[in-house]
Amino acid sequence: MAPIPVDRDALGMQRAFEEADAGAKEGGIPIGSALVQHDDSGDHLIASGRNLRIQKGSATLHGEICCLETAGRLKADVYRKCTIYTTLSPCIMCTGAILLYKIPRVVIGENVNFVGGEELLKKNGVEVVVLDDSRCKELMAKFIKEKPEEWNEDIGDE
Amino acid sequence: MAPIPVDRDALGMQRAFEEADAGAKEGGIPIGSALVQHDDSGDHLIASGRNLRIQKGSATLHGEICCLETAGRLKADVYRKCTIYTTLSPCIMCTGAILLYKIPRVVIGENVNFVGGEELLKKNGVEVVVLDDSRCKELMAKFIKEKPEEWNEDIGDE
Repeated sequence: MAPIPVDRDALGMQRAFEEADAGAKEGGIPIGSALVQHDDSGDHLIASGRNLRIQKGSATLHGEICCLETAGRLKADVYRKCTIYTTLSPCIMCTGAILLYKIPRVVIGENVNFVGGEELLKKNGVEVVVLDDSRCKELMAKFIKEKPEEWNEDIGDE
Repeated sequence: MAPIPVDRDALGMQRAFEEADAGAKEGGIPIGSALVQHDDSGDHLIASGRNLRIQKGSATLHGEICCLETAGRLKADVYRKCTIYTTLSPCIMCTGAILLYKIPRVVIGENVNFVGGEELLKKNGVEVVVLDDSRCKELMAKFIKEKPEEWNEDIGDE
């Protein structure tokens, strides 16, 4: 895949952030994601999604999983032309989903509030970009402070 | 967690196999899973699930993910008393889900047709038991032979 300029990443992260923000307004865990395909004609949003633990009583619909689920059934070659955007460093489940589908590029809003499987992604040849986005950081920090129990449940901590 | 006798594992695997078999009869990818909690009063089935790629057009409902989703929201300490049963060696996404929730024990029907993240599980202290179950092997081998494209899609291969 040809290098993707960082300014184009702003659009993907904007969509992921809008999902996170919508989640916050629903009383959910504010993490969002977007899957964008790159080809010669430009960038195409395939799907976006957000953490739905609270809204749907879900144990697996993290932002990235929700995004991939919303995207539906895709052939392997589609994933390989994509960047997945996520407002927060992906947990090990979402890391595994990215590796399963061999998505070559992950753009992360922030990894201050949580660090997931970034090293495992890199070790497997995935390009990892961290934008250190202040909106993402503030939204997540506020949630963790206000609802530590829901956050711990989401990452399997006691 | 105290050691679990292998004969008790037969019950968990039976449930996982029934899910896989039901999936096959629906025209789905025949992989099933069950989550069983162990405590002083015995073994308790929390949930079971099966791969729903074909049935629901799902990219993320692998057997184990479906099982965890069906189980719903659980506190961290529940997962830590569980075994997850799966008819086939768990892919890297399902491996990640097991690691996220720190499920300490994974019992696998077979790893002849596919080997997933077993080494990563072991490296993280998860007990991995492979039963080498002939029913699981036969069901999966038949599916892969008959529908190689659906199988490749499920594991992100071309």
